[in-house]
This record gives sequence, C-alpha cells and structure tokens, in this order.
Amino acid sequence: MLYLIGLGLSEKEISLKAFELLTKIDNIYLDTYTNYFDFDLLWLENSLNKKVSPLSREDIEKNPLFLETAKKEDVALLVSGDPLVATTHTDILLRANKKGIQTKVLHSSSIYSAIAETGLHIYRFGKTASIPYPEENFFPRSFYDVTIENKERNLHTMLLLDVKKEKNLFMNPKEAIDILKRLDENNNIKDIVVISRISHENQRIIYGDMEELAKFEKEFYGPPPHTLVIPAELHFAEEEYLLTLAEIYKNSKNK
Amino acid sequence: MLYLIGLGLSEKEISLKAFELLTKIDNIYLDTYTNYFDFDLLWLENSLNKKVSPLSREDIEKNPLFLETAKKEDVALLVSGDPLVATTHTDILLRANKKGIQTKVLHSSSIYSAIAETGLHIYRFGKTASIPYPEENFFPRSFYDVTIENKERNLHTMLLLDVKKEKNLFMNPKEAIDILKRLDENNNIKDIVVISRISHENQRIIYGDMEELAKFEKEFYGPPPHTLVIPAELHFAEEEYLLTLAEIYKNSKNK
Repeated sequence: MLYLIGLGLSEKEISLKAFELLTKIDNIYLDTYTNYFDFDLLWLENSLNKKVSPLSREDIEKNPLFLETAKKEDVALLVSGDPLVATTHTDILLRANKKGIQTKVLHSSSIYSAIAETGLHIYRFGKTASIPYPEENFFPRSFYDVTIENKERNLHTMLLLDVKKEKNLFMNPKEAIDILKRLDENNNIKDIVVISRISHENQRIIYGDMEELAKFEKEFYGPPPHTLVIPAELHFAEEEYLLTLAEIYKNSKNK
Repeated sequence: MLYLIGLGLSEKEISLKAFELLTKIDNIYLDTYTNYFDFDLLWLENSLNKKVSPLSREDIEKNPLFLETAKKEDVALLVSGDPLVATTHTDILLRANKKGIQTKVLHSSSIYSAIAETGLHIYRFGKTASIPYPEENFFPRSFYDVTIENKERNLHTMLLLDVKKEKNLFMNPKEAIDILKRLDENNNIKDIVVISRISHENQRIIYGDMEELAKFEKEFYGPPPHTLVIPAELHFAEEEYLLTLAEIYKNSKNK
C-alpha cells in the first residue's frame, strides 16, 4: 500500500491521523523536489524514532524503487502542502494503481485555501497561475494574461512564485513585481497583496500599490515562501480586513 | 488570544501542531453551524480530557461571549476544513483584532486542494460556485453561469452543495444534477465528476455523462458530504486518471 502524506505549510502541520499512521510504517520517504518547504523533519524522525529517506526527482520519476517496495509493504511518501496539488503526485497514484498497488492520500493544509489569510474571499478567486523565472529566449507572459482575464471577470488571482530547487532559487516578490511591471504596460494592475511565510510564526501580509511595493528591495520581504495576489475590486469586508490586518503601502493619491 | 483551528475534512485531520496547542488551552469551542462535518469530537475530548463546547450561529454572530473571554485568556474555536474558507471566520478575525485581541489561524485540509483527488489538475480550476436549494420564488442560476464561463475558458468548476443544518438538509448529487439539467437547456454540460465523502475511508469518485448519472436515485451516492466538478476538456493525464481510479458511467455513444 502507498500512502501519500501531506506535511502542510509549516512544521507539525501534518495531520494527527497521518502521524499515527507513520508510527506503524517502516518505509518512510520524503519528496525533496516538488514543493518548497523550509522546515526540517528532525522533530518527526525523533518523535517516531525512525529514519525518513529523501527521494530526488530521479528517484521519484525515473527509477521509483519505492513503488516496488509498495507492492509488498506499506510505504509512506511525505510531501509538502496537500499532496495532489502537484500533478506529479496524481501521476504517482496512477502509476501505482496500474501496478496493482492500493493508494491513499492523507490531506493537509495548502496555499489554495490558506491564501484566505489575506482576507480575500476564497470563492472570488479565478484560475491560479505561476510566475516562472525569465530565460534567455523566453519572457513569461501567460500568468499575466490569466491575471487580466480574471480581473475582467472581477476575480482575484493567486500567483505562485517559481522555485528552482537545484539552483537554490526562490523567486522573491521584488523579482515578481519587476516582471509584472514589465508586462503591465497599460497599468491594469494597481494593487498587490503579498503573503510571506504563510502559516509560519513570522507570517506577514503586505498590501499596497504595485508602484509603492516596487520601491522595496528583496530584503524587505524576508525569506521565502512568498505568494502574491492581484486582487479584483475589493468588497467592503475584504478592504476592511486588509486595512486592519495588513501592512499598508498605499500612495496618498490612491487612498 | 484567539486561535481559529481547522479540523480538516475527516476525523483526526487536525494538525499535530493544533492538537499540541489544545493540550494547553482550557476554553475550547466548536463552531457547529458554518461547515458540514460528520465526525464527532469524542475522541478529541477523551484524548485531551477536556470539554469542547458547541457554539450556535447566534453564539458566534450575535452574542460572541467567546470573544470577551479571548480578551483575557486563550480561546480556541474549532472549525471544519480550513477555517478561513468561510467568510464568517475572516469576519471573526477582524472583529477580534478591532477589540485588541491577537489572533492566529491553524490550518488544515480543505476541499479547495483535496478536490485534486478527482485527478483534475488544480491549476485548471476556475472560480468555485455553490448550488443552493431552490426556494418558492427563486430558482438558483448564478452557479450555472459561473460553470459556463469557466467552460468557455476551458476551466473546471467545483460546485459545492447546499447545507441547511437547521433543517438537517444536505444536498445530494441527485438533487444537484436535477437542478443542473433544468438550467442546461442547450446541453452544454456533458460530463460530471462526483466525489463523495472525500478523505473518508469510504470515499468514492464517480465519473460519467450527466444523462447517465441523472438516472440514479439519491441512495446511489450514499451519505454526505458530496462535491461536484463540471470538468473542462480533459487533459490526457486527467482522463487516464479518471478511467483508472473512478467508477465510470459513460453512455456507449459518448465513449
């Protein structure tokens, strides 16, 4: 049997159910490549008195020995956030089922619902998009088109920021805003909400004009993870929430 | 201090972090009205050796004594799913902050990410909508318009089903499909995915033509909770997943 187990957004966000299950499983692996996470699992190894073996991209996609083990024994694959948000993991479930291996997902918290920490109503979000790092011959644009389409329907857009683990690169809000500004020639985007280190002790919600936020250096936002939201027109309750709970950087003429 | 604590989608999906916190808190309340849940909290009361006091809608919105307590002592409000998905809970955070009460959210699993159990890719979902029960002078329609707008952008739509707790009514997929059929005069909707009792031991994923699924009685789907997805055009990987992991009810001429 193969268990895909969500670790959530920060330390000890694994569910009690999953934790109890792990006490009974000997083959515990950690997916180290799909999602960002910044919490170590020493506390977990110590509580369980078991080793958690890291798996690389190759271990998971090219040479999945853990699937062979799962034919005979229980195997747990630990994943940051909620497991199936990464399509790699729906693919693992599919491959396992085709080999006759039973599978089960143990869910945990995810940015897809936790983004409501911004006070923006979750049912007002349109399609989510990701901002990739520009490359030599490619300047990303599709996330911008998604944002504008959502805006036209008066929907918020959650923008996930690129992570290049192998290079230890985590896109910072400063870099994301620079990319946005380059694409937003007609000034369609006025406001931005940044949420930094969601669900961590030092979580910050930052709300302001793109022009104002663009003035800050990388360091202002602190370490990753960060997520951006380009809000639609704010409901009264959403605006009140941001004005009460966020750090505000509004230009006086836009107030 | 006020803690909003997510209970997740099924028993023991509360995070380990939240569970540990509850061992140190004496004022523990349960929001009994906003979301659906079908798991009792006896296990929690027994593990903690503490009482969890249920709060009604009135206790939360009209006469929130728990907020007065939170001015002086730690208070935990338990909520199904991930707390801020219900706008009532962002409103509670706002009201608490205005009273000078510090707040913190402890996240858990939510249908917003767990819906990926259908194999449909989470980044291909558009705006979510809810199907309300029709009333004497009101036949709901806006969720249908959202579905069609999403479809036009080739996006999936998650449809949440109405819950009327005070009347013990939980909309069944049969009722939802009957409402959909009444609105879908031009046969825009072909396929439906139903997920029943997500994250529970007896979870089911049902995939079929709306015409075929409409033939089943309520009982076919079993007890709540249920969620519907109206899929956009399926990616190859999404279709393969559904054909492998779902129960299929396709009319031979649509195969």
